[in-house]
Amino acid sequence: MRAAVRRETPDDFAAYFDRLWPLMRSITGDGVRRTHDILSELLPLERTEIPTGTPVLDWSVPQEWAVRQAYMIDPGGRRILDVADSTLRLVNYSVPFRGRLSRRELDEHLHSLPDQPQAVPYVTSYYRPRWGFCLSERERRALPDGDYEVVVDTELFDGSLTLSEAVLPGEEKDEALISTYTCHPSLANNELSGPLVAAFLYRRLAQLPRRRLTYRFHFGAETIGTIAYLARMGDHLQDFLVAGYVVTCVGMPGKFTYKRSRRGDTQADRAATYVLGRVTDRPVEIRDFDPLGSEERHYCSPGFDLPVGSIMTVPYYAYPEYHTSLDDRDLVSFQAMVDAVDIYFETLTALELNVTYRATVTRGEPQFAKRGIEVPVAERWCMNWVINLSDGDHDLLSIAAKSGNDLDELSRAAARCCEAGLLERVHRSRDLGKELNVSSRT
Amino acid sequence: MRAAVRRETPDDFAAYFDRLWPLMRSITGDGVRRTHDILSELLPLERTEIPTGTPVLDWSVPQEWAVRQAYMIDPGGRRILDVADSTLRLVNYSVPFRGRLSRRELDEHLHSLPDQPQAVPYVTSYYRPRWGFCLSERERRALPDGDYEVVVDTELFDGSLTLSEAVLPGEEKDEALISTYTCHPSLANNELSGPLVAAFLYRRLAQLPRRRLTYRFHFGAETIGTIAYLARMGDHLQDFLVAGYVVTCVGMPGKFTYKRSRRGDTQADRAATYVLGRVTDRPVEIRDFDPLGSEERHYCSPGFDLPVGSIMTVPYYAYPEYHTSLDDRDLVSFQAMVDAVDIYFETLTALELNVTYRATVTRGEPQFAKRGIEVPVAERWCMNWVINLSDGDHDLLSIAAKSGNDLDELSRAAARCCEAGLLERVHRSRDLGKELNVSSRT
Amino acid sequence: MRAAVRRETPDDFAAYFDRLWPLMRSITGDGVRRTHDILSELLPLERTEIPTGTPVLDWSVPQEWAVRQAYMIDPGGRRILDVADSTLRLVNYSVPFRGRLSRRELDEHLHSLPDQPQAVPYVTSYYRPRWGFCLSERERRALPDGDYEVVVDTELFDGSLTLSEAVLPGEEKDEALISTYTCHPSLANNELSGPLVAAFLYRRLAQLPRRRLTYRFHFGAETIGTIAYLARMGDHLQDFLVAGYVVTCVGMPGKFTYKRSRRGDTQADRAATYVLGRVTDRPVEIRDFDPLGSEERHYCSPGFDLPVGSIMTVPYYAYPEYHTSLDDRDLVSFQAMVDAVDIYFETLTALELNVTYRATVTRGEPQFAKRGIEVPVAERWCMNWVINLSDGDHDLLSIAAKSGNDLDELSRAAARCCEAGLLERVHRSRDLGKELNVSSRT
Repeated sequence: MRAAVRRETPDDFAAYFDRLWPLMRSITGDGVRRTHDILSELLPLERTEIPTGTPVLDWSVPQEWAVRQAYMIDPGGRRILDVADSTLRLVNYSVPFRGRLSRRELDEHLHSLPDQPQAVPYVTSYYRPRWGFCLSERERRALPDGDYEVVVDTELFDGSLTLSEAVLPGEEKDEALISTYTCHPSLANNELSGPLVAAFLYRRLAQLPRRRLTYRFHFGAETIGTIAYLARMGDHLQDFLVAGYVVTCVGMPGKFTYKRSRRGDTQADRAATYVLGRVTDRPVEIRDFDPLGSEERHYCSPGFDLPVGSIMTVPYYAYPEYHTSLDDRDLVSFQAMVDAVDIYFETLTALELNVTYRATVTRGEPQFAKRGIEVPVAERWCMNWVINLSDGDHDLLSIAAKSGNDLDELSRAAARCCEAGLLERVHRSRDLGKELNVSSRT
Repeated sequence: MRAAVRRETPDDFAAYFDRLWPLMRSITGDGVRRTHDILSELLPLERTEIPTGTPVLDWSVPQEWAVRQAYMIDPGGRRILDVADSTLRLVNYSVPFRGRLSRRELDEHLHSLPDQPQAVPYVTSYYRPRWGFCLSERERRALPDGDYEVVVDTELFDGSLTLSEAVLPGEEKDEALISTYTCHPSLANNELSGPLVAAFLYRRLAQLPRRRLTYRFHFGAETIGTIAYLARMGDHLQDFLVAGYVVTCVGMPGKFTYKRSRRGDTQADRAATYVLGRVTDRPVEIRDFDPLGSEERHYCSPGFDLPVGSIMTVPYYAYPEYHTSLDDRDLVSFQAMVDAVDIYFETLTALELNVTYRATVTRGEPQFAKRGIEVPVAERWCMNWVINLSDGDHDLLSIAAKSGNDLDELSRAAARCCEAGLLERVHRSRDLGKELNVSSRT
Repeated sequence: MRAAVRRETPDDFAAYFDRLWPLMRSITGDGVRRTHDILSELLPLERTEIPTGTPVLDWSVPQEWAVRQAYMIDPGGRRILDVADSTLRLVNYSVPFRGRLSRRELDEHLHSLPDQPQAVPYVTSYYRPRWGFCLSERERRALPDGDYEVVVDTELFDGSLTLSEAVLPGEEKDEALISTYTCHPSLANNELSGPLVAAFLYRRLAQLPRRRLTYRFHFGAETIGTIAYLARMGDHLQDFLVAGYVVTCVGMPGKFTYKRSRRGDTQADRAATYVLGRVTDRPVEIRDFDPLGSEERHYCSPGFDLPVGSIMTVPYYAYPEYHTSLDDRDLVSFQAMVDAVDIYFETLTALELNVTYRATVTRGEPQFAKRGIEVPVAERWCMNWVINLSDGDHDLLSIAAKSGNDLDELSRAAARCCEAGLLERVHRSRDLGKELNVSSRT
């Protein structure tokens, strides 16, 4: 895993960011497809189109949404709130409408934030048919009385929901999942940062000469996309997933925040807390799971209870610009995105090394000398730790936590022990319960 | 549960206190019966008389005790230590005696406290036949030499032990228990406060238009009364009791002290710690169980191990006036007793709301929109919490502890989910082990 | 257990220390046997000789080593680095060699410590055939150029490994183990202190009029000796051992350090932490198990996982004189060794008292009066604790930890309860799992 890999630059991020920014994304539609087209330059996305009306778990796939144009003509004849200028102007999933409304009649279709008078809010209405425009409180107050001509030239039609996936095969059937979403239009931290970081993370992994785990990258839509993905892949993930992460809100500089999986002590949690505790010197916050966040709400619903957490920098809800026009290019840092790729790459590296062994000699320590093992004392101590704790209950990350040793050292020591026949890989173990039942069948 | 209920006043407490104070109570006898007669004005007590000699668990019901008169004539001819003046003067359960004793011979029958020279101790001798008088150390030192005429005109005879119970039925068979004891004569904090608070608590509950739980109020005697009650009701309580509290030492103002049940994590513990942690701003102390206290020693003996704790203010052993004549009307506060009813009422309210549900949609979150659920975000978050954690392992108090939400909010959110078919009640569950096995059969 | 026992004096330790100091000890050989001969004056050691080549667990017994003489003649004709002057001069287990080497050729056979220029290191080479001499860095720098005559007159031959054991029988088959090692030559804290403390501890125990447990004292060699001992006795120890301690590094004054067993919550751990927490007012450190220490590495290997910890003062690795000529008579304190016997004796005393009972009356408290039990309240409270917690899951040390009472008090209370038929001994219990499965068969 420690092969030299090319690290992307902030400029690499900026170039893709600027191409993706203006697209009118939603949970469905051509904006999503064009987004995935561009991301496909970075990783080999395979697209699945799920037709409108398909039942997916408790939900069904909604109609597809298209926007041709949307704007208003104010009483002075000026074209205002044009979606061509900003994707946030139109309530996402607005139903079609054409008509003439007084300023007063218009009011219930306008969305602004009295407490943030300069911000245009991001508003969606996926499952309640309505139309509306978003503007700043300041703009709203400046709207003159009189009649407005409203054009919402949208269409809702039987189409499909677009999910894209790239799989990077490894030597084993055990899998790690990177999941992110492309349903937010022109918003930067939440959420162009997640798709960009996920795509560049793929490129890092793809450079490795070999991988133990198989990596599955999912680009969908929050909620309905995750639900549809789980409808297709949930059983498979329950069988093979050892760790997954929702990549979201990784565009702003700041401390790293890790939100644990619902179970709280999965490989995903051990890898992320190990890396945040050791590899970075940035401030770190570790949070317990809550069901109020992003895609992990579904991955960690009790019927799946998958080992999925999320490393973020400044999370949803935690910054005032969240879900407004102020979550823009100026708010984020492309260097922060490079750093996010780094931390995720380190975490996946830890998972690569996180093997479970069983010691072959368990009554008394084995004799190293007769196997020709002569190593410095630091390495011997690592071997002692690995052999003593490889009782089927501890993977290497657990041993690192107990011993205080680095995972790298322990991994090298374990490899040495394997060569000498002192350890053997545990592939499936009833002893480890749920977690290892999902381990590789190789 | 949030119906408006009339709160009693400190004067209500004072009136009953003053009527109950002078009665010669003991573990048996007419003083107990007269006490229960008076309490019956507040709640419909049904009396059970258990005959002397009846085997109850490891014990048997003792003889009944009656006091006609008890006093001494001192060498100067003065009538002293007259039980007619204070119930504490006579060692409780003194055997009959009449005779003339020198000051020296008298000495072994006198009880005083050298360290508290102004206090008359409260002394009992239920199971060792003897007689004695109690006086302050100061009084004792002032007793002149010479002969004393002693009159202990008591009787021990085959009678019965009096237990009283009031049951306030609820919609379900699950029960909560309020247990207190009326064996202490003229003592205020320990223990007229417990019976008074319990009786007025009943009146609060009785005003509620509906109750989920069935409430059982027990008034007996410490130790033998609890033992006899458990001999009759122990199996029933093991089947139906979800939470119980011993109401004792609630007459003095001060921080609230909660003593956990032996298991430590029962519904009784969750409800009391929730309420003490949220509802009151008084200082609070949470203690682990010990087998040195009051009735909970028997409820929590390992063969029963019932979910019974105790909320107190200044507990037995913790104040110097304990078990002396100084534990009197001046020491206690009737407002403190009103406050104790409040805190117990809040705790029972929490139990009323503490239902366990199971989510019907467990693979991914359910779709609210198709069920017409449109609620503010705070309520939706509560619904998310309840649905995610309603896996059979968490009751609403557990979810409140994990989520930090108020029980009221969670309860409303759960009701909303139930209406929408997203949750169903768990009545009995092997998953929850011992605790839920005692849940309702409805 | 509280019989008056004669405590040894620091001078008793000094006398034996001085006789044992000059002997050329190793993992095998006559130095070990002479050491055991001298220790046999203190306790009845029975010797087992295990022949070279005997397979023991993953190891086999090595050849025996004898040293006739070893020294060098320097270019100036002076006899230097003579093993007759100090046992540390010769690399332990050096193969025979005679020859003439230049100063440069000699270099790879010399061992010194550049960072501790005045210390002669203690070096062994049990399983790699080589020879060498140890000297201080200062001495090394002063060696003139020129040719050196080297005499390493040693022999490696098929002989045997010497293990010695003394068993002090008790009333029950449950056993405690005291294990120490005699493979270190002239080193004081690590490790003449361990064998001396173990031997004098035996004498203390032997003075007791009766013992509940059977005590097994093992004197062997680190690693190969422990392995060989486990090969013989491991199954027996798994059946009968309730607690064991490796006595090592107890010669220096300082805080007491307890290193837990691998399981961490065995009787060995409860007894040591109880004693260190209560009996001594010296500073105390409690450490979790690690597999980097001494004999406990093998006792606590996962295939045995025995209840074996270690009370030390200044442990291996924790002092700069460790494994050098500076770990000598001046470094240690014979009073510290007396103190170590004290603390181990207290710990074994705690184990003697650490019985598990089961209450005969479990539904409600038992009635003391009908059994004629009349005791002070402090004793009654201890009885309450023991009866309430004697549910098969708690031994007396567990009850001491929960109640805060002294083990002595609890033990007396339990004895009183036993007499009254309120408790009965638990000898074997499936409830307690692994630990109590090794309990007595009596």
